[in-house]
Amino acid sequence: MTLFHGLSAFPLTPAGAAGQVQTEALCLLLERIRKAGADSVGLLGSTGAYPYLSRSERRRTVEAAVESLGGQTPVVVGVGALRTDEAQELARDAEEAGADGLLLAPMSYQPLTDGEVYQHVLAVTEATGLPLCLYNNPTTTRFTFSPNLIAELAQVPGVAAVKMPLPADGDYAGELGRIRAMVPASFAIGHSGDWGAANALLAGSNAWFSVVAGLLPAPALRLARAAQAGDAEDARRVDDAFQPLWSLFRQWGSFRVMYALADVLGLGAFEPPRPLLPIGPEVRARLGEALDRLATLSLPTSIHSAP
Amino acid sequence: MTLFHGLSAFPLTPAGAAGQVQTEALCLLLERIRKAGADSVGLLGSTGAYPYLSRSERRRTVEAAVESLGGQTPVVVGVGALRTDEAQELARDAEEAGADGLLLAPMSYQPLTDGEVYQHVLAVTEATGLPLCLYNNPTTTRFTFSPNLIAELAQVPGVAAVKMPLPADGDYAGELGRIRAMVPASFAIGHSGDWGAANALLAGSNAWFSVVAGLLPAPALRLARAAQAGDAEDARRVDDAFQPLWSLFRQWGSFRVMYALADVLGLGAFEPPRPLLPIGPEVRARLGEALDRLATLSLPTSIHSAP
Repeated sequence: MTLFHGLSAFPLTPAGAAGQVQTEALCLLLERIRKAGADSVGLLGSTGAYPYLSRSERRRTVEAAVESLGGQTPVVVGVGALRTDEAQELARDAEEAGADGLLLAPMSYQPLTDGEVYQHVLAVTEATGLPLCLYNNPTTTRFTFSPNLIAELAQVPGVAAVKMPLPADGDYAGELGRIRAMVPASFAIGHSGDWGAANALLAGSNAWFSVVAGLLPAPALRLARAAQAGDAEDARRVDDAFQPLWSLFRQWGSFRVMYALADVLGLGAFEPPRPLLPIGPEVRARLGEALDRLATLSLPTSIHSAP
Repeated sequence: MTLFHGLSAFPLTPAGAAGQVQTEALCLLLERIRKAGADSVGLLGSTGAYPYLSRSERRRTVEAAVESLGGQTPVVVGVGALRTDEAQELARDAEEAGADGLLLAPMSYQPLTDGEVYQHVLAVTEATGLPLCLYNNPTTTRFTFSPNLIAELAQVPGVAAVKMPLPADGDYAGELGRIRAMVPASFAIGHSGDWGAANALLAGSNAWFSVVAGLLPAPALRLARAAQAGDAEDARRVDDAFQPLWSLFRQWGSFRVMYALADVLGLGAFEPPRPLLPIGPEVRARLGEALDRLATLSLPTSIHSAP
């Protein structure tokens, strides 16, 4: 499977209150992802709390993940930063630590122009030889990659893919067609937004950048494989079993829910970085019900089993 | 004049390509602000590029500014950070370096809830004894303080003021009235958004948190004093002379324009932190015209004079 294709699993990054990463706990999550057979790991993505961690902790995280996965599952590393020089340093760090690819979100404080983001991406590709996926995540970065900008950046050597949000109008095939007409055939177009993954993959998206696969890789893979094979009926059946979890993601934000889910699954009691706050016990009860619903799927391993 | 009242001037922070602050160049800007008689300096605000600078550079900046101003103009320091513990550290640093007050923007990557921002502000007030101004800047932080949240936070010891964006509906008096009805009488409500400052002050806003006053303190003070005195005719005349500059601010973003303006004024050739890019020569020509228009005001000192 080519990098930036298929199921990419985005684990949270277990860390203490001062932002020190707990690499052993992380490696337990990575081991589950590897065993399930995900196509790649999206390390230090938005779910992996990259903007809240220092450069040294981010480097230590990549080193631990690469060692743990032993080359069996490719590692794509988020290298977003507010400053261009910092994103370049993070990209070099990731390459030196053995990453297979980069994910670059144009983090912003002052809103950025298309020309600024173009130069930013160019500078990061020039800093390393790793293939790079554009991270189009307007909710967190306040920057939207237009189809025109994606097409321009797809011409830059090293820019290999884009991670898209779900289309507001739900027209997955239409949007994919518009972008595909403007980029080289080798350029990969994938999606994040777990609750739209089935529809995106069925419409021909190349990849599912999946939050839930960071903790529940087996059912996520079941969904991905059904949709990639074009088996709409099976994909919708699995997607249906995910509905209670999707509704918690949409209500509370998948970032917060993932921390509670790790705890409910017995994978560790971590807290999100403050100011983000842990969600309360009422959501944990609903998480238990969401997992029971997923357990009705026939899967190679139990949802609840710790690694 | 009470802190968080009157004209607060927000200088840019001159810095090299790697984010090292040029304190001598900064002190030239501060000297202009002090001489003009602004009521406070808003150091390391959004215009001061705080999110793009390291903790050590931010501390060095506060130390240099406090020494330069010699207690003659109070210094309010921006201590925003993505992590609560970092904002606390920055607040302690600012207090130790001699700041008079704090400005706290709830920077975000993952969108924040009201409860999270409340706890974040509380934690920062508990870290120092300095009075704090809430920084309500949805464009850069993606968080909007509701009147209810402002009212709750106004009860927290140390929370003394709020810096508001211009009301979308232009109803300055209405919004001021709604918030004033919910907060203690001593709580200050000020505004940013230079092109709305005349109307805000005429409607009774306590403060103008001014970008332009960071480089052109004399005409900004002329505008502020006219509006504070309720002289609508004179305030509108001065505001009118600012119109060409306001229109560049709105078109290019005041952050980028300030760097070009510093150069045009002969105060130093600094560049914004990448990925932000300097604006081109066509805007510089229009800046010259905007300054000529301001020069038609009778002011104690020439607009163009270097310090």
